[in-house]
Amino acid sequence: MKRYDELTKFEREKLYNNLKLTYDKFCEMNLKLDLSRGKPNMGQLDISESLLSMPLTKEDYICNGVDYRNYGILDGVPKAKELFSDILNIPKDYIFVGGNSSLQLMYDLLSKAMLFGLKNSERPWCKEEGLKWICITPGYDRHFKITETLGFELVSVKMTKDGPDMDEVERLALDPKVKGIWCVPKYSNPTGNTYSNEVVTRLAKMKCSAPDFCIMWDNAYAIHDFSDDGDKLLDIFSEAKKYGNEDRVYCFSSTSKVTFPGAGVSIMATSPSNLKYIMPYISVSTIGYDKLNQLKHIKFLKDAENTHNQMMKLASIIKPKFEITLSALSDLNGLGIAEWSKPNGGYFISLDILVGSAKRVYELMKNAGVTLTSVGATYPYGKDPEDKNLRLAPTYPENEDLSLACIILVLSVKLSALEKLLKD
Amino acid sequence: MKRYDELTKFEREKLYNNLKLTYDKFCEMNLKLDLSRGKPNMGQLDISESLLSMPLTKEDYICNGVDYRNYGILDGVPKAKELFSDILNIPKDYIFVGGNSSLQLMYDLLSKAMLFGLKNSERPWCKEEGLKWICITPGYDRHFKITETLGFELVSVKMTKDGPDMDEVERLALDPKVKGIWCVPKYSNPTGNTYSNEVVTRLAKMKCSAPDFCIMWDNAYAIHDFSDDGDKLLDIFSEAKKYGNEDRVYCFSSTSKVTFPGAGVSIMATSPSNLKYIMPYISVSTIGYDKLNQLKHIKFLKDAENTHNQMMKLASIIKPKFEITLSALSDLNGLGIAEWSKPNGGYFISLDILVGSAKRVYELMKNAGVTLTSVGATYPYGKDPEDKNLRLAPTYPENEDLSLACIILVLSVKLSALEKLLKD
Repeated sequence: MKRYDELTKFEREKLYNNLKLTYDKFCEMNLKLDLSRGKPNMGQLDISESLLSMPLTKEDYICNGVDYRNYGILDGVPKAKELFSDILNIPKDYIFVGGNSSLQLMYDLLSKAMLFGLKNSERPWCKEEGLKWICITPGYDRHFKITETLGFELVSVKMTKDGPDMDEVERLALDPKVKGIWCVPKYSNPTGNTYSNEVVTRLAKMKCSAPDFCIMWDNAYAIHDFSDDGDKLLDIFSEAKKYGNEDRVYCFSSTSKVTFPGAGVSIMATSPSNLKYIMPYISVSTIGYDKLNQLKHIKFLKDAENTHNQMMKLASIIKPKFEITLSALSDLNGLGIAEWSKPNGGYFISLDILVGSAKRVYELMKNAGVTLTSVGATYPYGKDPEDKNLRLAPTYPENEDLSLACIILVLSVKLSALEKLLKD
Repeated sequence: MKRYDELTKFEREKLYNNLKLTYDKFCEMNLKLDLSRGKPNMGQLDISESLLSMPLTKEDYICNGVDYRNYGILDGVPKAKELFSDILNIPKDYIFVGGNSSLQLMYDLLSKAMLFGLKNSERPWCKEEGLKWICITPGYDRHFKITETLGFELVSVKMTKDGPDMDEVERLALDPKVKGIWCVPKYSNPTGNTYSNEVVTRLAKMKCSAPDFCIMWDNAYAIHDFSDDGDKLLDIFSEAKKYGNEDRVYCFSSTSKVTFPGAGVSIMATSPSNLKYIMPYISVSTIGYDKLNQLKHIKFLKDAENTHNQMMKLASIIKPKFEITLSALSDLNGLGIAEWSKPNGGYFISLDILVGSAKRVYELMKNAGVTLTSVGATYPYGKDPEDKNLRLAPTYPENEDLSLACIILVLSVKLSALEKLLKD
């Protein structure tokens, strides 16, 4: 197949008309398909079914004379810390075990920074003007929304195959108004790639003018590999410690995509001195998180090895969905109209198409009954400056629906490209 | 028995020496008893044991085609709203169902008020100077701590047998710097009494200069009666609606003392227009709360009637503990050295002793191995200006321990009173 930009006008028109006929047929099918959100599908949820009927007995909830059914223990059940320490390779004394939402832990940390400041802050952030935040693009809309709502100016830095463009990040960090950066370091949302060792080291090492600069290290897909041979992410805590910058790292993770979304257990990990500073503030806001759900997760996940087995069971469902999507996308190979990521884990594929085409593809898909993530959602303020990125979330639909949605996607990408080239 | 202030010096000395002998014997027993926190005891927790092994099946978690095991539904499972509406007599569309902690919902609301303002705010509260908050004393330490930490000046208003001194509350509400008031309207922590109809109406009706004045209505003990004949609390929402002041009321409750402390379900109830304003802010901070725990609670508590039965089972354990405490305290009757509340529900008894004696009693108790709630904890900034209030929490200890602790308490109150009178 020739590149579209090498086709003659006549060839383009002919191709367009042919594709349009097929597309119109799909439109007549009144489909209702959804590729928009990174939600697990029912089959994945069924894998954790036994957690829903797992009984807790005295042996589980009475520990060293402490009755976990009662109030107390703000920072989480010790065995939950051990489990996450084991899974994530983070020392136990760095770990705070939270509730059902790591996003909430992130939000809470930053709103406490606004109201009271962080450990190394000179004042509460709400007493400073013109604060900025680094957003790697494309990235996770809910991250961007938190810092937007808290009043930060969002500054975009491009994602490369190795992680954020570090020259740009290092330049921005020299601005004392820049207070932090959002990172999804492994199987990044939505590009699916993992930060290289060099990028992790540079983040850990870089000079930041703000004494309270914050790396929000959302390791949401820490163990969400498709195979035993997943991407390896350098440990940012040991790197940061080497350079005396440990306090800048706040790591987050959860079991939302290990057991049940929004009904799992979340953690925040940060230096013991950061924890010592922040815990009294947390203790004002709650007596503690749900320890019984922590106990159920300990009983269900057991240890890192068993959790890995759980992830491989989930991967046996997720991986084929990525293969279906990538196989459909391969039809765009060599046309010069699209590039996409081929991740080894996580929940997303990022599809870059011709500049100025993403909204058009969204519209074509919508007319054919397929919902995509809103165009621009992966950019600060919901605006993709080049209008070219689409986030694909293959996990939620059933395989047949996914195949159909991908065929329509490929058709729509082709149609939009031809429309554009015919106009130029 | 004569009043202590009518005893001669000789009688006082003789009595003191006798009591001191007994007290010293208790000190030799190396006791370790705790009357300090409003924690349920193990027997209460056992009543909810079946909740710990309650399985959720497809019938529970699939509802109208929605799979509650997955992400979604920020404001809570509809059936959870129905349950709380049924239990608390609040319309469904006023109810937001949260996570395991109502305290966290309170904190989150006020920190959002600080950062963004409430529906009727002119600006975020953090942009205003010199804000004040009304604290009814004695009251709940964790409430006071939230507004203290957020930077409010805490203004004390005395609790009467009918609720807060409303003349004083109305006077303070005319100050535009006064942004709100903490209330535990039923079985108040720690006095155990319930606001009279007149007090509820006056709170609903009063003129507030701050357009965003907030009544934080922590109805923690809404259904925590000792018998079928519990206190009746007037519905503040209907009262506030009559006077066009509905937006000032934020009601909170939870199942922490219905099922498991810190592992139950919490709610915030407020006017639909307040909810409409605040929900977008909540949606930035979390994808949603733990719906599976909501489902388990729906299955366990079923409806208002069954929940009432649950409360009566709990009361069968709690009421005897209050009776033990009150029976011990009755030994202080007629001595002119103590007054205390005799609540019909809730978790606390408030004991007022001679001015300037509370710290001394705390010390005497501590030396005898009994922990009381820190003196002053029930006052803003942890300081009881008259040093005379003690909060008794009878629920946690076993009955034998409680009896012993109460005997030592009565001894300590007598000793401290005699010490004081002998000095004067």
